Amino acid sequence: MIFSNTEFYYTPPELISDKAIIIADVEAKHISRVMRHKVDDIILITNGEGKIYQSVIKNITKSEVIAESQKVFKQDNKLRNVTFCIPILKSSDRFEFALEKCVELGITNFLVFSAKKSYKRGVKLERWDKILLSAMKQSLQSHKPKIDVTHSLSQTLAQESNKIYFEQNSELLIENYFNEKNNSKLLVDERIFFVFGPEGGLTDEELNSDKKNIQLKLTSNRLRSETAIMHTASLLNKYLESF
Amino acid sequence: MIFSNTEFYYTPPELISDKAIIIADVEAKHISRVMRHKVDDIILITNGEGKIYQSVIKNITKSEVIAESQKVFKQDNKLRNVTFCIPILKSSDRFEFALEKCVELGITNFLVFSAKKSYKRGVKLERWDKILLSAMKQSLQSHKPKIDVTHSLSQTLAQESNKIYFEQNSELLIENYFNEKNNSKLLVDERIFFVFGPEGGLTDEELNSDKKNIQLKLTSNRLRSETAIMHTASLLNKYLESF
Repeated sequence: MIFSNTEFYYTPPELISDKAIIIADVEAKHISRVMRHKVDDIILITNGEGKIYQSVIKNITKSEVIAESQKVFKQDNKLRNVTFCIPILKSSDRFEFALEKCVELGITNFLVFSAKKSYKRGVKLERWDKILLSAMKQSLQSHKPKIDVTHSLSQTLAQESNKIYFEQNSELLIENYFNEKNNSKLLVDERIFFVFGPEGGLTDEELNSDKKNIQLKLTSNRLRSETAIMHTASLLNKYLESF
Repeated sequence: MIFSNTEFYYTPPELISDKAIIIADVEAKHISRVMRHKVDDIILITNGEGKIYQSVIKNITKSEVIAESQKVFKQDNKLRNVTFCIPILKSSDRFEFALEKCVELGITNFLVFSAKKSYKRGVKLERWDKILLSAMKQSLQSHKPKIDVTHSLSQTLAQESNKIYFEQNSELLIENYFNEKNNSKLLVDERIFFVFGPEGGLTDEELNSDKKNIQLKLTSNRLRSETAIMHTASLLNKYLESF
């Protein structure tokens, strides 16, 4: 099922039963006040876990919209094994833009870290969560993105087998790496972590802290951090198509 | 030659001779005042036509830097045949962000048009030119991007043979189109125009104004305008690699 020219609303799975779907708070207000939906209107509600309920509105109160499911659609999360490890960037605009674009392009797991050359700014998890959820709905997808913060990326990834670091001085192009069937199959079969550098790049210490890292470059020219992040999201979609 | 951890300066070809390279105005001030370069320092200067001059600074005056070329490098413009036709977007931030990202990803020809559903905002050619030049230098590339504005896209493209419009309801994925060798060869052999829609999409009239259009979709889910633009730039790099 391809959706277009429509909108998605989100409510958590706990508020969805066979009998009723409850939408609360801001989302309910958006339905009734902003979009001016009425009882008997048909809307699309996602549980953030890949299901989309085509539902009819049964009741609208001050703080809730109650709907009943007519039909359920499912979406696959193709890039579910992929986690993007993103450093805090100097420009919060560029950082947030990258998050939004990644979600549109199907990335659902984010791990934010403070790189050696990161500007030490506040972590705004609540704000980022909103951006991610909004991008999911806007792009008509149904897998709610998750974002976490780690104070030590190398510790968090210590036990992981598949870690790809981006470094412009690397000899190996991402293309050449993923053109190997064994490597592109990783995207489907195993958890895989992509680690991006901040504006000043990753330090040698960060790049070499883990002997099991693969280091790749994205293009022959230099890319800004947020461009590298978005470009990788674009390409992963492409590499997955071969399955 | 791969450049990294450096910076590029731009001066037009008219100011470059065998004897001297003159850098004027803002760019000269950037070299002397911001970057605090001195006589005898080595800098990289591009003429915006694919040449990079490794040069030694011979003289610094109030308004000029005079350098002498030691060695010349050349860069290829792989996507030289590609023109991105971009509508004016409601958000100028998003529009300018898309321009910057496209340049980083190697697009050098832009044609801005006002779509039926575009928000009629001012055309800021001078500002856009600065963004493009700055993105070229920042990403260590040497082909100066060109940007034009047209008041009638269909008229401007009337005589062109290769026009690709993006439309989410199209059946044909960009992948499937460019996986055909004959089609991906177009990127190398002929001029090709990519037309993107504004926030509200292209109208049926715009899509069907020209019978020779190819209509493609980018992903199964919806993408924002600027995301569609950047994603296409990312993918074109990929399709070119097969040559």
